[in-house]
Amino acid sequence: MKATMKDVAALAGVGVGTVSRVINGVKVKEITRKKVEAAIDELSYEPDEYARALKTNRSNTLALILPTIWHPFFSELAYYIEEELSKQGYKLYLCNADGDPEKEYEYIQMVKQNKVDGIIGITYSDVDKYVSSNLPFVSIDRHFSEDVTYVTSDNFGGGTLAAKELVMRGCKTVAYIGGFSPFPNETVNRREGFLSYCRDKKVPFKILDMPEPITDLHNQILRFIKENDTIDGIFTVNDFMGLTVLETLKTIGKTAPQDFQLIGFDGVRMAHERKYTLSTIAQSVPLMAATAVDAILNKIKGIEVPKRIILPVNFVSNNTTIELR
Amino acid sequence: MKATMKDVAALAGVGVGTVSRVINGVKVKEITRKKVEAAIDELSYEPDEYARALKTNRSNTLALILPTIWHPFFSELAYYIEEELSKQGYKLYLCNADGDPEKEYEYIQMVKQNKVDGIIGITYSDVDKYVSSNLPFVSIDRHFSEDVTYVTSDNFGGGTLAAKELVMRGCKTVAYIGGFSPFPNETVNRREGFLSYCRDKKVPFKILDMPEPITDLHNQILRFIKENDTIDGIFTVNDFMGLTVLETLKTIGKTAPQDFQLIGFDGVRMAHERKYTLSTIAQSVPLMAATAVDAILNKIKGIEVPKRIILPVNFVSNNTTIELR
Repeated sequence: MKATMKDVAALAGVGVGTVSRVINGVKVKEITRKKVEAAIDELSYEPDEYARALKTNRSNTLALILPTIWHPFFSELAYYIEEELSKQGYKLYLCNADGDPEKEYEYIQMVKQNKVDGIIGITYSDVDKYVSSNLPFVSIDRHFSEDVTYVTSDNFGGGTLAAKELVMRGCKTVAYIGGFSPFPNETVNRREGFLSYCRDKKVPFKILDMPEPITDLHNQILRFIKENDTIDGIFTVNDFMGLTVLETLKTIGKTAPQDFQLIGFDGVRMAHERKYTLSTIAQSVPLMAATAVDAILNKIKGIEVPKRIILPVNFVSNNTTIELR
Repeated sequence: MKATMKDVAALAGVGVGTVSRVINGVKVKEITRKKVEAAIDELSYEPDEYARALKTNRSNTLALILPTIWHPFFSELAYYIEEELSKQGYKLYLCNADGDPEKEYEYIQMVKQNKVDGIIGITYSDVDKYVSSNLPFVSIDRHFSEDVTYVTSDNFGGGTLAAKELVMRGCKTVAYIGGFSPFPNETVNRREGFLSYCRDKKVPFKILDMPEPITDLHNQILRFIKENDTIDGIFTVNDFMGLTVLETLKTIGKTAPQDFQLIGFDGVRMAHERKYTLSTIAQSVPLMAATAVDAILNKIKGIEVPKRIILPVNFVSNNTTIELR
């Protein structure tokens, strides 16, 4: 049985109106607020979507929770999300969660108090227990056990495409290099897509999987390449890993695309006017931003949104693969 | 000895930000709040009541106005500003102004309506008429006619340092390459510092000044280098211009540091764990963020703040200058 506002009021020994004021962030006496909050916690009470929809006074703010804004993929995403929201009259709170679930939890509370209308989150922390299907929350790249909408690129298709592009360019033995996180996220599908193509087409492949946080990355890559010296094509879980592979192999005199070919994933650029940093499977960041904004605004309005939204990726040939005629 | 917030944090095994949140009544997890409250009791810690009184009824939000978040310098700055503010219990609105003064003006209005407590702004638009000395506004890199506090790196000193480092590494004819904006900003001092050193030390120099927005950048650089083929050391207004010079000269077979040496300005990195992209005069972004946050919070509290705050820079030798023994 879900707790109601009445239950909270009874347990806290206050009126229903007081509970409503606390939930909506209206100022009440400190001691009263504490009693109500304790009752909310004890009963795991969640203000329901319908009651919230009736309120005309929305905050017209959204929160964007990112691991860090200091990363070109996340800053491009934030750029387009803010631009899209601004067109809709929304303001954006920025939160670098940086693996601190406490910070993420704060914004979840702000949504429950109607101080923020909803959250777009890229989160790899363990916040599952706070995220429920009636919370206006859209996740990017990570799925939750709860019925939470998430937007992601076609990671499996992108992995397959990377394998295909390497093979088309003459690679005979290919490798996948990547880390993996303890939290379920979509990037594992990049690996699966890549390996699936190799198995189907009987392309010899090697794998370097590194649990996160990765230690001694440079030497792990060197050892892997030395032990598998037939590798002539590499696909990395993301562009940063690709750049690290480039830098590492340079120290033993190997450069791309002369000595090996390399394809990353993400399509990071330092800024709008800068080029891609290597050949890559590029995610469409503007589309991802527009889709996430659309989904969260629909959720806020009570319009049903699919649980999983998958967006296309494309191969961008840059300076680490050979040009095909 | 009076206990400090740091002592409480250490005893409770949480961050200072969490203690601050508990004290300011920001919601944190029940178990965390209990730990912090126990530590406060045990240490007889007393939060400064006066400071807290000033905070009540504030929105506890600030706005950060940037030309764009999609740029490693701005995203690093936003990262550290948000981190700093979070410790103080503040939330951050992100605004990509992108040369749209209307968007900047909206946040200025929000301050006047007490929806936002203050603004940290990097703005190159014409918002002078809206920015007055009693508006809680801290500018970065740009000065206003009004008595508005601004935080900036030692751009003149950085320019001088770049010239000195090039000359120390054997350069005989040096060049400055940069664009310039119609709005007054601090970056012109990089040029002035560089030229001042050259004049003082009688080092031959050439200048390529390009009015913004810059058209046909690639060909302007090529023409300049071809017309001045004795140039063996280049200082650029920022790292992005430096990267463009590198890419452009590569097309005519010139690489650094073999054929010429190059120093940029800013010290951009794509992310915390990535390297600098070239030899550069690095700004201290964490210090700039902490200083700007300190200044704006003092302004909000009515504490006087200097009009101009200048921060040190340092030279970072990377792959575009030769190593000195």
